[in-house]
Formats: sequence, structure tokens, C-alpha cells
Amino acid sequence: MRLISLEDIKKIIPGIDLFPIIKEGFVAYSSGNAVVPPVGEMTFDNPQGDVHIKYGYIKDDKYFVVKIASGFYGDSDKGIIPTQGGMMLLFDKSTGKELAALVDECYLTNIRTAVAGGICAEILAPEKINCIGVIGTGVQARMQVLFLSEIIECRKLKVWGRNKKNLSKYKNDISMKGWDVEIVNSTDDIAESCNLIITATPSKVALLKLDKIKPGTHITALGSDSIGKQELEPEILDRADLIIADSISQCIERGEIAHALKNKLIGIDDIIELGEVIHSNKDFRCRNNQVTVADLTGVAVQDIQIAKAVYKAYKELKNEI
Amino acid sequence: MRLISLEDIKKIIPGIDLFPIIKEGFVAYSSGNAVVPPVGEMTFDNPQGDVHIKYGYIKDDKYFVVKIASGFYGDSDKGIIPTQGGMMLLFDKSTGKELAALVDECYLTNIRTAVAGGICAEILAPEKINCIGVIGTGVQARMQVLFLSEIIECRKLKVWGRNKKNLSKYKNDISMKGWDVEIVNSTDDIAESCNLIITATPSKVALLKLDKIKPGTHITALGSDSIGKQELEPEILDRADLIIADSISQCIERGEIAHALKNKLIGIDDIIELGEVIHSNKDFRCRNNQVTVADLTGVAVQDIQIAKAVYKAYKELKNEI
Repeated sequence: MRLISLEDIKKIIPGIDLFPIIKEGFVAYSSGNAVVPPVGEMTFDNPQGDVHIKYGYIKDDKYFVVKIASGFYGDSDKGIIPTQGGMMLLFDKSTGKELAALVDECYLTNIRTAVAGGICAEILAPEKINCIGVIGTGVQARMQVLFLSEIIECRKLKVWGRNKKNLSKYKNDISMKGWDVEIVNSTDDIAESCNLIITATPSKVALLKLDKIKPGTHITALGSDSIGKQELEPEILDRADLIIADSISQCIERGEIAHALKNKLIGIDDIIELGEVIHSNKDFRCRNNQVTVADLTGVAVQDIQIAKAVYKAYKELKNEI
Repeated sequence: MRLISLEDIKKIIPGIDLFPIIKEGFVAYSSGNAVVPPVGEMTFDNPQGDVHIKYGYIKDDKYFVVKIASGFYGDSDKGIIPTQGGMMLLFDKSTGKELAALVDECYLTNIRTAVAGGICAEILAPEKINCIGVIGTGVQARMQVLFLSEIIECRKLKVWGRNKKNLSKYKNDISMKGWDVEIVNSTDDIAESCNLIITATPSKVALLKLDKIKPGTHITALGSDSIGKQELEPEILDRADLIIADSISQCIERGEIAHALKNKLIGIDDIIELGEVIHSNKDFRCRNNQVTVADLTGVAVQDIQIAKAVYKAYKELKNEI
């Protein structure tokens, strides 16, 4: 079995054209060409954290993949910093033989999540973006912006978060990458002035309210990957002209959609799967008076696609093809 | 992260006193001191195989464990040999940090399953064993006997299997270990002459019939770990004076108990969990006119316990304590 270190993975990633492979994964998933069992999950209380196990295979592939990704939130009062961990495992689908352990410490999960956000922005963001709103200051709040840079021209950004120190560090770091970053005191400020909003927190209460959302806004919500987490008032989904889920079966039990379904504000038929949107090639872009929401919970096909690509590139690097 | 090879694992295992640690695991599980989410599972058709993902933690432990174990059945007509694969992963429960990958290729799963069978025999086997019946010729059909050798004195064994070549090889190998092995043509022969029976096949149809089972027989059924697999006529469980499950929640959906429950031959209240039996210290031994059945589907606590023990021994071996 090959042990591929985070160091090697970080060298390999810039050489991979990520958008097409992640898109292919979503299309395979939504067209029934992937086997993705329900997400495995464990939560921890002391200290607080969660682990997700996502696994599956694409039917005509040679591999199956098991991904373990953990996030421990830390406790800034006690000086405990948040940590992420995990790995992606690649196996031969005809023998079960273990081929590689990509010890990515959650890095590839972060990348494939940011790419999914990028794909949503590419397809759904309004044509003219006034300002980007970011809720959260963690890894995804940063990576999403990094991947947006490749897709959109706007460099104006408002950010909201709970922790002043983290906000200040966020502003500093993202400004260095050529963004005009403003820290705001309330999520209402973001809703009122941004027409592309990304929510990337582990919140368990709604942070964005419907009455502040402007027509013509696209929201990508990606923080709520576990049951119970929530970032949007479910009424936003009721108002939305378009609701996109990365996985309908997952969003039934987790994510923003789960809350809106539970409150009977929307029905299953109101949801379109991201793979279907990509495959259809129709224009779904958010218009002047529309509100669109993409709810990302993270699907194993993303892990499968990125793990395969890294493994292939690693073998090429070592001249083992 | 430490990568512990199968070679190292095989060196370490003989130095570990396995029965007490696996018993402790079952007791922790049955007394609610372990967190064990539902089993993750994928099945494959071409070639036929399955993968189980078992994971969890014991509440006051430092670790959580994720185990991946696969079995591909092979195709003797096409000369494809059966294969097993997988690994056990150990993580720090307070940070998610990956500590070790035990690349056991299913070896530790086989060991901990054989130990569970040994524990059942130790507690439930009749006092005087006439002959041991083994259904199947695979890895477990061998390992169970190996671990029984340490517990019981009887060395008379009857074996049944589908494949003549495998039967002949089984007889040869087990005879070399001091057993008197007889190949039989039907499972009825086993039922009629053995009072300790082990079923260890991936069968999807019942192989042992009630009307042939003699009073005073204990059966340990461990082949049916996936939904749909079956080795015993469910009527055997109806007749049984004692039904033991390694995990009641797992046996509701898989194993022999699932079939008997589905057919309404038994109820949940008729089942006792192995950890409870171990903890109670009562005498549950199979008596003259009794029939007892232990249904083993494999529980993550077994994986957690063996992975921890190997990791600890490995660190001692490398003087890293």
C-alpha cells in the first residue's frame, strides 16, 4: 500500500484540473452511476467534534474509496485550537486490495468542498456581483474565496464571524491575496449588501434571515454537514426560486434542506440535484429578482474523484504508470 | 501516522492475551459504555464481494477506531481465488489526529472473530463434546478450530463444504494440527453427530435444518454478517433454549436472528447480548436437552479492542512508550 503524505498531496494538487473531475463525479452520482451508501458519522462531546465516513464507488471504475474526515472545533476560551484530521483510502474494486492511503488530514476534503462551492458559483452566481458575503472565518471561509478568485472578477468582500481575533486574521490574510475585505458586525449587513453569500460555520442556529435577503442573491450554504447544524432560516428556502442539493438523499436528513423539509416549507420536488444541473447544461443563473440556494453536505463522489486523481498523479510523479 | 504492516501484526498477536480484551469490549458494548454507529456496508457483484466499515469508541478511551474489511469470494470455476483486504485505523479521540494504520488485510478481523467464537464455546459449549461440526472450509472454518484447541479437549471434527478440493485441503491442514478430521457429504450428518457446530460460510440459504439437530447442541453461526446471508433454518432459533447475539441492534437487520425475527419465530426479548452473558458470570452452558445458538455478526468493539492492543504492543516493541 502506498502512503501518500500531505506534503506530497500539496505538491500534486496544483497540477490537477479539479473542476471537471468533481463535476464528472456529481454527474455520475445524479445519473445513478455511483454507489454511495449513507454517510457514517460519529460525534464527540468533550471536546466537541465530529467524524464523517464517506465511501463508495463509480460503477465502471477500478476503485472504491473510503474517506474519514474529522473536525474538532476547539475552545478559544481555553486556548484549544480547532483541528482537522483524516485520510482517503483507495482500494481495488475487484479484489478489495488496499492501494493507497492519502493521509490528507482533511486537506482534500477541504479542497473538494471548495471546488463544489466554486462549481455552484460558476453556474448560479448573478452575472454582476456587487460584493461577496462570507459567514465564518475558518478553513472553508478562506478556501471558498480562493477558488472564487478563479471564477469571478469581484474582489469586494464582507465577512462576519463570532471571534474578533479570527476576523482580524481573516481580513489580514484575505486582503493579502488582493481582496478588499470589510469586517461587519451582523449577518444582516451581509444579507443587505451582498448578492453572493457563502455560509461556512458549524452553527446550530440560523445565522441568515429571510427578511434581509435581497432579490437577486445566490447563497451557497456548506457548513451544515451534520444533523442538527443550521445556518439559514428555513424560510429562505421557501422563498428561493431554485434549491440545489449536492445529494438529495443526504439533504433529507442533514443540511439546510432538512430543516425546511421538516418545517414543511418545501417538498422534495422543489429540489434539484447538482449533478443534474451540471449535466443539463441549462442556464440556471440567479436573475434580478430571484433567490437561489445551493446546499452542500459533501458527497462521497467528490472524495472518490479527488482521491483517484491524486493517486494517478502520484504514480506518474514516481514514474510508476 | 504509524503504518503497521501485516508482518509486524503477525509478530505482535501471539504476545497479546486476546480473550480478556475482547470480553471487555463486549461488556463495554452491552453496558452502554461504547459508541458504535450502524455498520457501513457495500456489496459488489462482478466479481462478488462485500466491504464492511465498522467504527466507534469506548467512552473513557483515548482513541476512536475505523475498520475496513473486505471479502471477495472468488470463482473456483474461473480459477479466481478468494481474497480478503482491509485495515484498522486508530485516531486520537480528542483531536481526530490519525495515529496508526494497521494494514492487517483482514487478519485482525479474522482473529477477533475467531476469539468471539472461542468465547462463545468457552461459555456455551456442552460439558462433554462428542464431535465438532464445521460448515465451511475458509479462513474462519480454520481459525475457529485453532482457537477452540485452546479451550476444549475434543479433537474429533466433521467438516462439510461445497468444493471437494477445498475440503481435501482443509482435512489435510487441520489433521496436521492434531485433529481427527472426517469429510461428510451432508450437513445433516454434522447435525446428527456433532454437539458443537460452527457455521462459517457466506451462504444465502439455510444449510442446517432443525429436524436433524440433536438436543444438547450448541451452534455458533458467524457466516451471515451481511443482510441476506443465512446459514441456519430460522426454526432452529425458535427451538433454541438460548439465543445469544453479539449485538442485538445489528442482529435485528443481519445474521440468523434477523431471519427468525422476520418470520416472527422469535421476539427481541428472546435474545441476550454476549456482553451481558459475559458480565453476568452465570452458567449458561448448553445442557443435555437444550439447544443454544450464538449469532455473531462482528461488532466494532472487537476491532477497537484488538487495534488498541496491537498499537500498544507495537509502541512497546519500538520502545516508544
